[in-house]
Amino acid sequence: MERSTNSEAPLYLKVAQLIEDQIRAGVLRVGERIPSIRSLSRKQKVSVSTALQAYFWLENRGYVEARNKSGFYVRVPATELAPEPKFQNSNPAPAEVDVGDILTKIMRAVSDRGKVPLGAACPSPALLPYHKLNRITRAIAQKDQLHSSYYQFPPGSELLRRQIARRSLDFGCSFSAQDILVTCGAMEALNLCLRAVAKPGDVIALESPTYFGMLQAIESLGMRALEIPTHSRTGMNLDVLERSIKKHSVKACMVMTNCHNPLGYILSDERKKALVELLAKHQVPLIEDDLYGDLAFDLHRPKVAKAFDRTGMVLLCSSFSKVLAPGFRVGWVEAGRFRDAVERLKFLSTIATPSLPQLVVATFLESGGYERYLRRLRLAFSEQVQATSQAIAKYFPSGTRLTRPAGGYLLWVELPKAVNTLKLFRQALAENITILPGRIFSASGKFPSHMRISCGYPWSDDVDRALLTLGKLCETHVR
Amino acid sequence: MERSTNSEAPLYLKVAQLIEDQIRAGVLRVGERIPSIRSLSRKQKVSVSTALQAYFWLENRGYVEARNKSGFYVRVPATELAPEPKFQNSNPAPAEVDVGDILTKIMRAVSDRGKVPLGAACPSPALLPYHKLNRITRAIAQKDQLHSSYYQFPPGSELLRRQIARRSLDFGCSFSAQDILVTCGAMEALNLCLRAVAKPGDVIALESPTYFGMLQAIESLGMRALEIPTHSRTGMNLDVLERSIKKHSVKACMVMTNCHNPLGYILSDERKKALVELLAKHQVPLIEDDLYGDLAFDLHRPKVAKAFDRTGMVLLCSSFSKVLAPGFRVGWVEAGRFRDAVERLKFLSTIATPSLPQLVVATFLESGGYERYLRRLRLAFSEQVQATSQAIAKYFPSGTRLTRPAGGYLLWVELPKAVNTLKLFRQALAENITILPGRIFSASGKFPSHMRISCGYPWSDDVDRALLTLGKLCETHVR
Repeated sequence: MERSTNSEAPLYLKVAQLIEDQIRAGVLRVGERIPSIRSLSRKQKVSVSTALQAYFWLENRGYVEARNKSGFYVRVPATELAPEPKFQNSNPAPAEVDVGDILTKIMRAVSDRGKVPLGAACPSPALLPYHKLNRITRAIAQKDQLHSSYYQFPPGSELLRRQIARRSLDFGCSFSAQDILVTCGAMEALNLCLRAVAKPGDVIALESPTYFGMLQAIESLGMRALEIPTHSRTGMNLDVLERSIKKHSVKACMVMTNCHNPLGYILSDERKKALVELLAKHQVPLIEDDLYGDLAFDLHRPKVAKAFDRTGMVLLCSSFSKVLAPGFRVGWVEAGRFRDAVERLKFLSTIATPSLPQLVVATFLESGGYERYLRRLRLAFSEQVQATSQAIAKYFPSGTRLTRPAGGYLLWVELPKAVNTLKLFRQALAENITILPGRIFSASGKFPSHMRISCGYPWSDDVDRALLTLGKLCETHVR
Repeated sequence: MERSTNSEAPLYLKVAQLIEDQIRAGVLRVGERIPSIRSLSRKQKVSVSTALQAYFWLENRGYVEARNKSGFYVRVPATELAPEPKFQNSNPAPAEVDVGDILTKIMRAVSDRGKVPLGAACPSPALLPYHKLNRITRAIAQKDQLHSSYYQFPPGSELLRRQIARRSLDFGCSFSAQDILVTCGAMEALNLCLRAVAKPGDVIALESPTYFGMLQAIESLGMRALEIPTHSRTGMNLDVLERSIKKHSVKACMVMTNCHNPLGYILSDERKKALVELLAKHQVPLIEDDLYGDLAFDLHRPKVAKAFDRTGMVLLCSSFSKVLAPGFRVGWVEAGRFRDAVERLKFLSTIATPSLPQLVVATFLESGGYERYLRRLRLAFSEQVQATSQAIAKYFPSGTRLTRPAGGYLLWVELPKAVNTLKLFRQALAENITILPGRIFSASGKFPSHMRISCGYPWSDDVDRALLTLGKLCETHVR
């Protein structure tokens, strides 16, 4: 395993990685009890809370499991997992995105609820707090009868903007309600930001691989995607980024700093800061997508790159779709110095965001318990990611590699070169299984043997069988 | 009054206009009883139902009023109203829209609920069925608990699409549920259509004056607006349109065929047909905005231009914002042959439309009573338009002209040349009154002495005083 982030890592992570090394070296074996938190704290000269954090990290990564009142035990040696994907460095060139036709077919398939849902990045409803959301909805429909009778003109519900501003301390910012603009999901926010900072024909730098929807949105706006090689732990290659900014006169940069889709990494604070400073130096706006930031497996909510913004050049986008209610379409943006332009474009695109979902989310946040809920949700996702990772290691052809997500519920799988994941997608569909082929995560046909697997649903026999089937289908490509 | 539509008019309208002529000529005087429906039917050799339709039209235009069980009486002679705006014919040239900065200021002002609301095109909540919508919302939040837990991926809720398809017979179409795509309001639908049929730099022909939001949206997409001179009764000048299509290689045409914003006219079926055929001949897609179509004052719901589409080149957009719930943001589009492109752009713009508002609107439509509700709503708007028209005739400087809306709740007022309505807007704001200055309804600074007045709120002393104040402010410009 690479340790490229080690020198920048927080203390708890260093301690956790010591334990991880011992497990990987076979010093600590499956089923064995690892040192107690107190003894670890003593030996490593760290606080009890740091030691606890380290164990929490190890637990979330699936290395150890807590057994009731008797401490932490080694669970599955990391060596049983497939290795991580290879980093492919290359010199990027702006590309027109060419995967549009496939995408419509794929999206229709993955939105079919009858399939085993390894395709779309949707959390299982069973994990979401819909009971409470419905209770709040009924209360608002009773008490605040006029919610539907007015346009909630931009910037949107003040109640909600206040709640978002309050939470911004958790990710290293201190927004006021006036800074926030509510949108129809993060996707609208990202589109508005792109349109505020760039024009058709302009070059947008972004990670490779990256969320296919963003590539397509860039293309649909007549802009060009510049794919910067991206490491599955440390993110965009900043040297290549800097060279590309000069060479291709990049107009804006889009990144997912926390729980990247599909790679799952969280950038260290140092890297976030370096990225912000690099872009500020070249006067390139940074559009930051923090859609999955609340789903980091670490004990502490990671900061956003926006936390290091000193010039107003970072536009931070997020939403409640991945953590509370995909069907509500409540997102938001803090657009820095581009605030007025983004607000105007919001009006011209959808006039207003629906009022009721805004009020429900605001009331949910105001009522407390969001952090407690998030802790349960993150633990569930980390367990699902872990179980899926193990099944892939077990069922898939040798030579398969996969990521170690630091949050979220997405796995990026690199299969042997002989496997064509577009063909695999079609074969899987015939077996009632959805996956996403790697090709759509690139503007230029990269990743033909990669795929993204969503672990948004609790582990089940169906999921287990689906992964076994996928593994067998892969074997037919290799043979 | 012009009679340019007379030869094409339906029978009831011809009968109604006979009565109108008698009132205008002073043959029938204020307070007098007009012939009974039966006697009219006998004398004019039309059916009782046609005679009733004629009286309904006269009532909605404010010429006559029904008195309980004793028939119809002449109300206010049309000659007491200000004359209609002058038609300004000219040769158009594509323009870049230049009113962006004013717009943001104006929209912030008109969304302030403390002001007398003659600015934004919002219906009064008192007229909207929010009680029933809330009852339905509570029922769904009780019975269909998972509505928020899934993305309602495009094309959107099937329940709603079926209801829209069912209603399409009323406006001359026969859609199936598959033809419909649900959007975040009509504004998203119009944006998606523009992007599906045209690229940045392309020329879009549209009415002049027209809805300012559309002009701005065209500009924000990097397209150019071509303003076709538009008559306040008969719509776009089709000769100029045809010449312009050739001269400026128009890429698409946008129109409001029913209850135009701001002019209020409804195009006759013949003109709709001629428009569709003219554009089909030149292979120019027609984006039709039927946002106010359900608010026509006539007894029958007017057809849409889409009803005459034989080539799939008409993209019909509408929404429930002006008739049910502005805050729900539920719109839709039937995009003809551009369906797949529009659906793909929808996904890339906002992923999905919020589920709950879709389900509530669908259930409202399914439950029946929509037509009955619409009849009450239209009558209220026609009375508000009538009362406001009379007050303008009374309070405003001589030389003021205003439209005769055939539906909706918007009046377009042409003031004497000396009046600067941008200045008037600011003066009115200081008096806590909002209006919309004419300038923003043009891409090229036309209409400096025009304004739009919304009659969305029931007549009240506040509205009366506000119009008196506006009239006095206008006098200060004239003197």
